[in-house]
Amino acid sequence: MKILVINAGSSSLKYQLIDMVDESVIAKGLCERIGIEGSLLTHKYGADGKFELKTPMKDHKDAMAAVLDALQDADHGVIKSIDEIGAVGHRVLHGGMEFTASCIIDDKCIEAIKKCIPLGPLHNPANLQGIQACQAVMPTTPMVAVFDTAFHQTMPAKAYMYGIPTEYYDKYQIRRYGFHGTSHRFVSGRAAELLGKGKKVIVCHLGNGSSLSAVVDGKCVDTSMGLTPLEGVLMGTRSGDLDPAVVECIANNENMTPSQVLNMLNKKSGFLGVSGVSSDMRDVWAAANEGNEHAKLALDMWAYRISKYIGSYAAAMGGVDAIIFTAGIGENDYVARAMVCEPLKFMGVEIDEAKNKGKRDEGVISSDASKVTVMVIPTNEELAIARDTLELCAK
Amino acid sequence: MKILVINAGSSSLKYQLIDMVDESVIAKGLCERIGIEGSLLTHKYGADGKFELKTPMKDHKDAMAAVLDALQDADHGVIKSIDEIGAVGHRVLHGGMEFTASCIIDDKCIEAIKKCIPLGPLHNPANLQGIQACQAVMPTTPMVAVFDTAFHQTMPAKAYMYGIPTEYYDKYQIRRYGFHGTSHRFVSGRAAELLGKGKKVIVCHLGNGSSLSAVVDGKCVDTSMGLTPLEGVLMGTRSGDLDPAVVECIANNENMTPSQVLNMLNKKSGFLGVSGVSSDMRDVWAAANEGNEHAKLALDMWAYRISKYIGSYAAAMGGVDAIIFTAGIGENDYVARAMVCEPLKFMGVEIDEAKNKGKRDEGVISSDASKVTVMVIPTNEELAIARDTLELCAK
Repeated sequence: MKILVINAGSSSLKYQLIDMVDESVIAKGLCERIGIEGSLLTHKYGADGKFELKTPMKDHKDAMAAVLDALQDADHGVIKSIDEIGAVGHRVLHGGMEFTASCIIDDKCIEAIKKCIPLGPLHNPANLQGIQACQAVMPTTPMVAVFDTAFHQTMPAKAYMYGIPTEYYDKYQIRRYGFHGTSHRFVSGRAAELLGKGKKVIVCHLGNGSSLSAVVDGKCVDTSMGLTPLEGVLMGTRSGDLDPAVVECIANNENMTPSQVLNMLNKKSGFLGVSGVSSDMRDVWAAANEGNEHAKLALDMWAYRISKYIGSYAAAMGGVDAIIFTAGIGENDYVARAMVCEPLKFMGVEIDEAKNKGKRDEGVISSDASKVTVMVIPTNEELAIARDTLELCAK
Repeated sequence: MKILVINAGSSSLKYQLIDMVDESVIAKGLCERIGIEGSLLTHKYGADGKFELKTPMKDHKDAMAAVLDALQDADHGVIKSIDEIGAVGHRVLHGGMEFTASCIIDDKCIEAIKKCIPLGPLHNPANLQGIQACQAVMPTTPMVAVFDTAFHQTMPAKAYMYGIPTEYYDKYQIRRYGFHGTSHRFVSGRAAELLGKGKKVIVCHLGNGSSLSAVVDGKCVDTSMGLTPLEGVLMGTRSGDLDPAVVECIANNENMTPSQVLNMLNKKSGFLGVSGVSSDMRDVWAAANEGNEHAKLALDMWAYRISKYIGSYAAAMGGVDAIIFTAGIGENDYVARAMVCEPLKFMGVEIDEAKNKGKRDEGVISSDASKVTVMVIPTNEELAIARDTLELCAK
């Protein structure tokens, strides 16, 4: 079966067509500037096939039509008919407490996703637009929703409850949800295949957005993102943890609304805000290497906070058997990995410099003597979504 | 020398008169409802001497006059003349980046405390009122300011900077300061006397307000409270850490200003908000023992978060030699101490049940085999203030 994976944002739509026989990517691409002048589709296929198409896309339905046209294009097409697409898997940001796993999209599922809009006010409506656009152009194709939050629903209350009056949990479901769940599940699942069951694993999903999770025998027991993806470690443009009083302090001093402060904390902070250089860690490294003190500080803060999270999750689980690095930075930046692990020697973490430096694909980077196994496991959220979709549609 | 220690709040003033020859408390007391109808002075002296006095106190000057009267009272007095008070030590909440240690109070010091008012808008003005009231009634007595933040000024930037645009640090000095510094210094100093220098120590100051600090060879390298005392672990009425987006979510849903939300996070959250029972851990225990699920959750959250902080500080320091419990809960609640340490066995923390249960005064509560020494060391902020005062005034 061929499965189409859709990740719809407010003005963008990412897609991958995956052949589930060998889990290979047949084609993938991105629609940008949906509903904005200058809509653009970038499509990649085969070994190095690629084309760009500037075509008006007034909404997600136009974008989906353009995607299906691209997949069936006379010159560059990878399928002859839409019927070859056996199912569609949709990434949905927020499943709230409604969803502990992926589910077939039916009216009940749509209603439940709508119910979660207050928790994901920017993403869930966009995700729904993506779903409805797909349903319009492929009315008979089965579809599955895969939630960024679902994997973390196994957390115990002591990890997901905030220290605020319970009325806010009852009225607005304010609690820790966690995100990147599809990645944490994929990576911790792969770790279990490689290391055996029953392990205590810390997954470090380190990219532009970053989160850590503590996973005991396949079940998430804690994670660093919270009610929203803002909480946790330092990210590309997100501040991560800070005294909640900072929100008040900036709001009052700058005469900003809470939403304006939160926008700043989400979009102008993190690497970008501290370094003043860029949200991309590679740029921050380059600046630091040229002597930029702000960039050096941003890198120090980044590594320091992740090391601390690892220590805290070891305490949360009563120990740790494996630490896994994944996502853009986690898979590719060996210096960053070494920085994070350096202060963890006291708990039996010992990196093998040669293995760490040489290895970017899946593999162990700790020494043979290390009490904790440290690994790189590349994440693949699209494949995880496709697998869930296949499994649910085959039922 | 006899030293008077003053801790002035907005409508209260606590005091202790300490004989520095043997560091014994000669007398101590509390003025309440200053500037409010029903002002009350409660005075204790000697082994069990005590009296209460209802007398109008329209301001801190009236309160100080009442305190000096009580100390010299014909029937209950402990001194014959104000001249017996050699110096006064004042607790001051926020020293910002101005103060890395205690200092003699002169015009320059007063100006610097005023400069820190934006960082401690409720406490610093009250502390200043206490100082000025003292100066009015004891114009020639030397005085010293001891800051709650000073001990934490040795933190490295990676620990004290938040992941926000640096302009907010430059404009408003928004950063982690930490509080309870006098206690953390006193307790970690005592730990160094007992265990030797060069150690990595985690001090758990657990009371109604709670904070942890990581101290390497006597120097603070990290602490859990931040810009304000709100950040960190769960406290009596403070939420501790949460996704900053919670502030926005509650402000928008409840039509509250950021300051109203922060007031709720400081005064109606923590044990009180989660348990719905009380801000006092003893009441929360009682409710939990009667089966109250919210109370049980509050206790679980409290211990869980402290265990995680200890794990994170071990990572921050690259290991830990000693964990010290102090303050109301830390000194008195052995079940709470055991809960916190239970998941830390993986890092070599082993509590001796008998020692823990039996011991409330200073002493080791870990087993002989424990790799990490766990101790109770009672804190004494007033004595620490008096010692600083003596030292500076003797110079």
